[in-house]
Amino acid sequence: MKYCSNCGTSNIEFKIPEHDNIKRYCCPECDTIFYTNPNVVVGALCLRDSKILMAKRNINPRKDLWTLPAGFMENAETLQEGAIRETFEETGSKAEVKMAYTMFSLPHINQVHMFFLADLLDDNYGPTFESSEVRLFEIDEILWDEIAFPTVEKTLKYYIEDLKEGSFSFREKDIKLW
Amino acid sequence: MKYCSNCGTSNIEFKIPEHDNIKRYCCPECDTIFYTNPNVVVGALCLRDSKILMAKRNINPRKDLWTLPAGFMENAETLQEGAIRETFEETGSKAEVKMAYTMFSLPHINQVHMFFLADLLDDNYGPTFESSEVRLFEIDEILWDEIAFPTVEKTLKYYIEDLKEGSFSFREKDIKLW
Repeated sequence: MKYCSNCGTSNIEFKIPEHDNIKRYCCPECDTIFYTNPNVVVGALCLRDSKILMAKRNINPRKDLWTLPAGFMENAETLQEGAIRETFEETGSKAEVKMAYTMFSLPHINQVHMFFLADLLDDNYGPTFESSEVRLFEIDEILWDEIAFPTVEKTLKYYIEDLKEGSFSFREKDIKLW
Repeated sequence: MKYCSNCGTSNIEFKIPEHDNIKRYCCPECDTIFYTNPNVVVGALCLRDSKILMAKRNINPRKDLWTLPAGFMENAETLQEGAIRETFEETGSKAEVKMAYTMFSLPHINQVHMFFLADLLDDNYGPTFESSEVRLFEIDEILWDEIAFPTVEKTLKYYIEDLKEGSFSFREKDIKLW
């Protein structure tokens, strides 16, 4: 932060405000304090006839690797709405959320990732601006060496474990390093 | 946002960027796009000898009403670390997280609230800058008419339900209006 977005001064200080214990960008001219906090990424493990919907990324980061549909939660939406929106934006498909499934803290990149189990409502899906290819994978077809993000890989592995057990439960785990 | 925090211009546009579908503050001078996303609030329902730790708020919003310790998740921490930190900052006590318990989307205020079940590790707790009073409540002592936030009330009610059932499970729910 080089300029105050409220008053325009370049006289910005990076310091611990009164009654706080973390350094923030502070404007001594207009007394605004600028907080930055972790972002939430929401996504879905969508099923259709027991197959898993995945998308090949057409944009960076991790272009050309496969992911579950996921992206930054936006203001004015719920976690589930975000997961459904991201699924549509990345795969063109309509999903219905069944349950909250995995949640990861990623403190090294200031993110929380949250995946839902969902059902695809029909067979309409395909490439989008964000995805060069979209397809359903049987479990033994998953391209484990071409998965874009560790939280996607872990969510898929939990799902396969739970499928064997016949019981799906919410899981919450920290990931501190890629 | 009145000025670009990167280049200082007041020539800021609020518009939908290319390949996006939501209006963002955009700087046409230096091409920076400013994203704002929901914040995560983390907290804990801390138990000591079956009693629940609550704090009377000494600051606004909801000054003088009772809450479970909770506050904004910070960068570089996990959800659990945030819950433990907030518990310490608001009550002076040390907590150990047992399980993720409740998660709420609050789209009208761009927040996600996440509460953990936790145990207090000792009997050290008391007033802090943020709390004028800190005490352990038996369930039948809870001051239902003086609770600061709906997500605190709902978390307490879920806990009491689950206590009767003898089984605690993760719950995830939208709250669209206060």
